[in-house]
Amino acid sequence: MSDNPSFVLRAVEDVVYEQRPIPEISGDQVLVEVKKTGAQPRRYLLDDNPEYGSHTGICGSDVHYLVEGRIGDFIVNNPMVLGHESAGIVSKVGPDVKHLKVGDRVAMEPGATCRKCDACKSGRYELCPDIVFAATPPYDGTLGRYYRLPADLAFPLPDNVSLEDGAMIEPLAVGIHSVSNLGGFRANQAIIIFGCGPVGLLCMSVAKALGASRIIAVDINVARLEFAKSYAATDAYLPPKMEEGEARAAYSRRNAEKMKLDLGIEDRGSKAIDLVIDASGAEVSIQTALYVAKSGGTVVQVGMGNPNVTIDIGQLTTKELNYKGSFRYGPGDYPLAIALVAQGKIDLKPLVTHRYTFDQAIAAFQATRAGKSEDGKGVIKAIISGPDFSADAA
Amino acid sequence: MSDNPSFVLRAVEDVVYEQRPIPEISGDQVLVEVKKTGAQPRRYLLDDNPEYGSHTGICGSDVHYLVEGRIGDFIVNNPMVLGHESAGIVSKVGPDVKHLKVGDRVAMEPGATCRKCDACKSGRYELCPDIVFAATPPYDGTLGRYYRLPADLAFPLPDNVSLEDGAMIEPLAVGIHSVSNLGGFRANQAIIIFGCGPVGLLCMSVAKALGASRIIAVDINVARLEFAKSYAATDAYLPPKMEEGEARAAYSRRNAEKMKLDLGIEDRGSKAIDLVIDASGAEVSIQTALYVAKSGGTVVQVGMGNPNVTIDIGQLTTKELNYKGSFRYGPGDYPLAIALVAQGKIDLKPLVTHRYTFDQAIAAFQATRAGKSEDGKGVIKAIISGPDFSADAA
Amino acid sequence: MSDNPSFVLRAVEDVVYEQRPIPEISGDQVLVEVKKTGAQPRRYLLDDNPEYGSHTGICGSDVHYLVEGRIGDFIVNNPMVLGHESAGIVSKVGPDVKHLKVGDRVAMEPGATCRKCDACKSGRYELCPDIVFAATPPYDGTLGRYYRLPADLAFPLPDNVSLEDGAMIEPLAVGIHSVSNLGGFRANQAIIIFGCGPVGLLCMSVAKALGASRIIAVDINVARLEFAKSYAATDAYLPPKMEEGEARAAYSRRNAEKMKLDLGIEDRGSKAIDLVIDASGAEVSIQTALYVAKSGGTVVQVGMGNPNVTIDIGQLTTKELNYKGSFRYGPGDYPLAIALVAQGKIDLKPLVTHRYTFDQAIAAFQATRAGKSEDGKGVIKAIISGPDFSADAA
Amino acid sequence: MSDNPSFVLRAVEDVVYEQRPIPEISGDQVLVEVKKTGAQPRRYLLDDNPEYGSHTGICGSDVHYLVEGRIGDFIVNNPMVLGHESAGIVSKVGPDVKHLKVGDRVAMEPGATCRKCDACKSGRYELCPDIVFAATPPYDGTLGRYYRLPADLAFPLPDNVSLEDGAMIEPLAVGIHSVSNLGGFRANQAIIIFGCGPVGLLCMSVAKALGASRIIAVDINVARLEFAKSYAATDAYLPPKMEEGEARAAYSRRNAEKMKLDLGIEDRGSKAIDLVIDASGAEVSIQTALYVAKSGGTVVQVGMGNPNVTIDIGQLTTKELNYKGSFRYGPGDYPLAIALVAQGKIDLKPLVTHRYTFDQAIAAFQATRAGKSEDGKGVIKAIISGPDFSADAA
Repeated sequence: MSDNPSFVLRAVEDVVYEQRPIPEISGDQVLVEVKKTGAQPRRYLLDDNPEYGSHTGICGSDVHYLVEGRIGDFIVNNPMVLGHESAGIVSKVGPDVKHLKVGDRVAMEPGATCRKCDACKSGRYELCPDIVFAATPPYDGTLGRYYRLPADLAFPLPDNVSLEDGAMIEPLAVGIHSVSNLGGFRANQAIIIFGCGPVGLLCMSVAKALGASRIIAVDINVARLEFAKSYAATDAYLPPKMEEGEARAAYSRRNAEKMKLDLGIEDRGSKAIDLVIDASGAEVSIQTALYVAKSGGTVVQVGMGNPNVTIDIGQLTTKELNYKGSFRYGPGDYPLAIALVAQGKIDLKPLVTHRYTFDQAIAAFQATRAGKSEDGKGVIKAIISGPDFSADAA
Repeated sequence: MSDNPSFVLRAVEDVVYEQRPIPEISGDQVLVEVKKTGAQPRRYLLDDNPEYGSHTGICGSDVHYLVEGRIGDFIVNNPMVLGHESAGIVSKVGPDVKHLKVGDRVAMEPGATCRKCDACKSGRYELCPDIVFAATPPYDGTLGRYYRLPADLAFPLPDNVSLEDGAMIEPLAVGIHSVSNLGGFRANQAIIIFGCGPVGLLCMSVAKALGASRIIAVDINVARLEFAKSYAATDAYLPPKMEEGEARAAYSRRNAEKMKLDLGIEDRGSKAIDLVIDASGAEVSIQTALYVAKSGGTVVQVGMGNPNVTIDIGQLTTKELNYKGSFRYGPGDYPLAIALVAQGKIDLKPLVTHRYTFDQAIAAFQATRAGKSEDGKGVIKAIISGPDFSADAA
Repeated sequence: MSDNPSFVLRAVEDVVYEQRPIPEISGDQVLVEVKKTGAQPRRYLLDDNPEYGSHTGICGSDVHYLVEGRIGDFIVNNPMVLGHESAGIVSKVGPDVKHLKVGDRVAMEPGATCRKCDACKSGRYELCPDIVFAATPPYDGTLGRYYRLPADLAFPLPDNVSLEDGAMIEPLAVGIHSVSNLGGFRANQAIIIFGCGPVGLLCMSVAKALGASRIIAVDINVARLEFAKSYAATDAYLPPKMEEGEARAAYSRRNAEKMKLDLGIEDRGSKAIDLVIDASGAEVSIQTALYVAKSGGTVVQVGMGNPNVTIDIGQLTTKELNYKGSFRYGPGDYPLAIALVAQGKIDLKPLVTHRYTFDQAIAAFQATRAGKSEDGKGVIKAIISGPDFSADAA
Repeated sequence: MSDNPSFVLRAVEDVVYEQRPIPEISGDQVLVEVKKTGAQPRRYLLDDNPEYGSHTGICGSDVHYLVEGRIGDFIVNNPMVLGHESAGIVSKVGPDVKHLKVGDRVAMEPGATCRKCDACKSGRYELCPDIVFAATPPYDGTLGRYYRLPADLAFPLPDNVSLEDGAMIEPLAVGIHSVSNLGGFRANQAIIIFGCGPVGLLCMSVAKALGASRIIAVDINVARLEFAKSYAATDAYLPPKMEEGEARAAYSRRNAEKMKLDLGIEDRGSKAIDLVIDASGAEVSIQTALYVAKSGGTVVQVGMGNPNVTIDIGQLTTKELNYKGSFRYGPGDYPLAIALVAQGKIDLKPLVTHRYTFDQAIAAFQATRAGKSEDGKGVIKAIISGPDFSADAA
C-alpha cells in the first residue's frame, strides 16, 4: 500500500497527477485516507458508494493558484498539491492520539499552527505567522489519497453528517468565523451580506442558524440572488446599474439610499442592520456596506478582490462603525460549524452543485473557474467526491 | 444681572457679539457663568485673576463653521453661538440638582442626549440621534457669559485642576474616548499616533498616562513633531517626501516600510504596535496606519479630512485588523479625563499656547485658523480665558 | 372617567380595592389603561374578550410582600398598589411622545430609572439607585386600571403577541437578562437550570430560542420537571434525596457526581456545561451548580432564598468560574423578549395556568401562594386577564 | 558535567538532596541551569556573585506539600523535586529553538500545557487539564541545578531585571492574572486587597503600576499592613476584632460598614471600589469583600484556605457582582509582569526578605513555614539565591 496519487500544480495552468510518498506519522498526528478493502472495484460510480474516499471541495483560491500562480505574496515556486476543503477517513493514528481511531470519519482543518507564538497562545491562532496551511505555498494540499495532520485538527463527524458535508465544513467555518466569532452575531439581529458566492451563502446559513431576524442577500446576478433567497435569505436585493459616467462613490451612496428605501432599513432601532458582511470584495459593495450598517454597527470584510478600495471614513467616524477583517477561522469555529450541521440548522447539500471523481479533478477546476459546467449549469460548489484512486495510480 | 454677551456666527466669515437672553433653568439643570462681584475692574489682565470667568478653547470645528458655514451635513442656517470646549462656575442650580451648588467650578460636557433611545440606554450615548451639541447647528454654543446644561454634564473640578484645564477636558475626552474607550489601550502597549494637532497630542498624553511602553508621534511638520516628543511621545517620525509621480498607495507602502525599519517595528510580539490612532485625516496617514498596525491590532479613526480615502483591505483581512471610527466621547470619558489631570498624569498646560480675553475672540479664531498668531508663534490651542464680559456688554 | 380602581396592600395579609387618582401625564409619559367603550357589559367572561383590559401576572415577590410585608431592605410602610408584570392599552400620550399613540397595545417595563447616574449612562440601568420600580416600596404597582410610565418603557406588541403574552414579557425579560445578557449564552451551548418555577422555565425557553445544544432542567418536584421537559428542556434531572445526617456540602458533591454520571456531563469539551443558572435560591442547588459548571464556565444566580449560602470556592478558583448575580433586566432585554415571542421561538401560553378577572385578584394571590388553585391544579403563572373594572369601581 | 543536585520531597516532612539525571532536551526545549566555571569557590557569599546560579522563591504551596503531602486532590505519592518560582541561565537549546541562546538569563513559566485542547487553543491555557506544572504532583519542580522546559516558557530578562527579580515573576504573574487579566483593572480604578502576603502585595504592586486611584490593603497583622502601606497601598485597614459569640456573617457585615465609614467607600460613583481581590482565603474577608465591592463590580478570588465559605448571595444578585476565581496565569501574564518590572513600575526587591544558598533550602522552608526566620524577622519571600551546587553534589 504505497500509492499516494496526488493532484499537483506544477506551474501556471499546469497540473498533473503524481505519486507522492505516503507521509510518515508520529506523536499526535493522524493520516487521513481513502478506506480501501480488497473487494473494491477498480472504478466507482458516485452513487454506488458516496461515503467512499476522501472528499474535497474546490475553492476559488485553488483556481487562483492554477490560473495566476500566486495570491498576493503567496507564490507557487515549486510543485504543490492543491486542495484544502476536505474530509476523509482516519487511516493511521500516531502513538499519542487518544480521541481518534482508524476508521473515524473526520473533517480536516487545513491549517496547522505553531502553538507557541502569541497569536496561538492568546486564542487567535489564525494569525500565527508560521501556519502550515494546505495548498498555500509552499505547503502541499489535500487533493491526494493521504493527508497527514495533527489529530486535534481532525474533527469527527457525527453519523448524520456525510463526508461531503465534512468537506464543506471548511468554507462553512469561514462563515462561522465572520458572522459569529468576529461579527458577534446573535439571535434577533439583522444582517446584510454582499455577494452570493459560496462564502456569502454560508454566512447567510450561519446567520439563519443563529436566529437572525432578517437576512438580506445582495448580488448583481439574479440567479444567485434567487438561490440565496431559496436557501437562507429573507430578502434579496438587486442593486441598480451604475449610470454612465457615474462615480463609484456617488453610485454607492445612491445604491445605499435605494436599498434603505426599498427594504425599510433605518440607521437605528429595530429596523437597523446590526452586521454587514462583505463577501464580494467589490468596491461598490464595500462602500455601500458602510452606508447601510447601523450607527454603532459592525462590518466584516471577508471577500477579497482588488485590495485598493476607496471608503467614506465619515461613515466610520460619525457612526462609530467597527470595520473588521476576517481571515480563515479560529478556535471553536470548526466545532460550531459541525454542530450546526449535525443539528440540522444548516443544510450544506444544496450548495454542492457539481460532483467529480478524483480523476476528473481538472473538470472540477474548469467548472469552478468558468462558474458553470459544460452543460451550462451554474456552479456554487464543485466537489471531488468518490474518487477512483486505484485507477489514477495505475 | 441680565446681560449675556455671546459670540455669534451669523454667516460665513460673519461673527458678532450679541446680547442673548439668560437661559431659564428648571429641574436638574444648572446655569454656568462667569463669577461677577462688584469690585471687578472693567478689564482684567489674565495674570490678575486667572480663575475668573468662563474659559473656552477654540476648536478646529468652530473655525470650520466660521469659514465654511458647514461641516458635512451640519449647516449653519441661523445665527449660532460658537464654542464648546468650556469650563466655568455654577451660577444657578435647578431644584432637583443635588451634587452641585452655586460657586462650584465645573467642566462642561457639551452634548445633552435624549437618554431614552437605544444608544443612550445601552451605554453609547455619543450615538444619540437627538443629541443637543453646543455649537453644532442649530444649537448655540458656550462662547457667552452663560450656558445652561443638565447638571450631570457639569463635572466638578478638583482644586488642583484650573478652569483652563477644565476647558481642555473636552478635547482630552476625545483622546480618552479614542485611546482608552474604543482603543482599549492598556499598560505596556505600544501606540502610533498620526497627526500632532491638539487631538493627536492629547491621545499621546492619554497613552502616556495609561502606561504606554512606546508612543510614536508622526507628523510632516518638524516643529510639531519636536513638541510631541517633548510633551508625551517616546519617538517622533518624520515621513519622507512623496516623490514626483509616486502614487499615494505606493508612497504609503514605502513610508510604512521605512517606518518599520527606522523604528524597529514588527508585525507581532513585543515590538509590534497594538493601537494606531489616525488624528490627521490624511489619506497617506490612514494608508500607512493599516500597514504598521500589528496583526490582530486596532486602528482608530478620529481625524477627519477628505472623507474619501483609499485603503488596502488586504491589510484589514490578512491581519484581521479592527478599524474603528471614533466620534466625540461617551460614558466615563469626562470623569477619567479629569481624574488623570488631577492625578498629575496628564499636563494640559503646555498645550495652551495662546490666551485671549472674551473680547479678543476674533483674534483667537484667526490664530487658530492660521495655525500661528501674528507674532508667528505656532498655535496648539488658543483659549478664551479671563474674559471682560462687562466690557463686551457695555 | 375618573375611576382608577386599584388593588392595594395596606399591611401584612391586608389587601383592599381602592379608588386611586388617575395619574396626570406630561412630557414623554404615557398612561396605559383598560379600553372602555359605552357598550361594555358590567362583567366580562374571559372568553368573551380576552384582549380586553390590562393584564397582570402575579409574581412571587408580590406574594412575598403580602405575606411578609418586606423583601430584604424593601419594607411596605405605606399602602402600596401591587403588581408589576403588566401589559395594556395606551390611553393617553404626553406631548413629547412620538412612537406611541392611543390604542397601542404595549408591554410595560416596570422600572423607571434616573437616566443620569453612572449606571444609567453606562448601559446597566438595572443598577440605578434611584429606580422607581412598580410594587417595590414605596412605589405603587400596576394592579389598577391605569398606570403611568415613560413612553420608552412601553413596548408596542406585534399583532401576534397577545396582551397576556405582553404581561409575561416581564418575567421573560428576567430570563433574557440572565441567560443572554449576563450569561452570554450562544447557539450550540449547553445549559443547566436549577429550579422549574416561572423564571427557571423562562430561562429554558430563552436557551432554546437561542439555539441551545442541551437544556437540563433540575427540580425536586417531579411534576414540575415533567412540565419543563415537555416545555423546553432536553433533559430532566431529579436529584436524589439527602440522606439522614448527610451534610449539605457532601450531599451536593454526591449529587453533582451522580448528575455528571447520569447525564454524561464532563468538565470540558463538547459534553461540558457552558452556563448554569440557579433559579431556585436553594443552597444545595447553588453548591451543585458550581460542581457541574465546566472549567472556565459561568454560573448566574437569579434565584433568591436564604441569602447565606455556603459554597466551595475551590471550584471557583481551580475552574476559574465566573459567578454572576442577575437583577431584573437591562438595555435590550424587553425588545429581545418581545421579538423572540413574536418570531414564535418562545411560547408563553403554556405557562399561564390560571386566569382571573381583576375582582378575583385575591384568589390569584392565594393560588400563587399555595402553588395550586382550589381544584388542586398546580400554578405556574396566575394572571389577571380580562378584568371587570367597572364592577370594582361601583 | 553530570551532576544535577535536587531538593526532593520524599514524604511528609521528609526532604533530601538527591542527584537526578540531567534532562535530555530536544526540539524546541531548553535546559536552564546554573552557570559553572572552573574558578568557582566551593561556597559563595551572596554579595560576591548575586547573579550566579538559579534562583527560586519558596511558595506557600511548596511548604504545604512538605507539611501535608497534598493540596486538595494533588497528592505527593512519589518523591518530587520542589520549587516552581525560578529564573536561571540557559545552558542548552534544542535544535528548533530560535529566540534563545546559551547564556540568556530567563524567567521560567512553570506550567507546560498540551497546546491542543480547547482551553489551550482558546486563550485560557491555565485551564489545560494536561498541564505539567513544576512541583505539582507527580511532576518535579525547579529546585535543582537543571530544569528543562519548552523554549516559549523561558522569558528573557532585560538587563535591568535581576535573576532574583526573575524568580519573583512567577508570583507576580499571579497578581497580573488576578488584577489585570481577570479583574480587568484599568487606570483610575479603586481596588481593595484582602491579605498582605506575597500574592496580595504583588496584586497591590500591579494595581499601582496600572494607575490605580486608590489601593486599600486589609490584613489583621499590623506589621504586614504597615509594610503594604510603605510598599504599594494608599490606605491600610485593620479590621476590628470579632466579638465573643458574634456570628461570622454578622461580623463581616459590621466590618464592611466600618470599613465604608472609615475609608469613605460608597456603593457607586467615584468613591466606589471597582475591584476587590481576596488573597487571604479567609471566610470573613470574602464575606466582607462582597459587601464593599461596588454595584456592578468585580471580586476576584485568588486566595485559598478552607474551601467551604458562606457568602451572602443577596449581595451578588442585587449588585450584579461578578465573582471570579483566579488560577495561576495565562497568555500574556508573564510578558506583562516582566515589562512592568523592567519599566520600573514594579519593584520586587523589597519583597525578598530572606536569601539562602541552595544547601540552606531547609532553612528557607522553615522560615517560610514559620513566617519568620530564627532571628525573628518576618518573612515575605524567602528565596534560594546564589547556590553552591558543587557542595551539595559532593
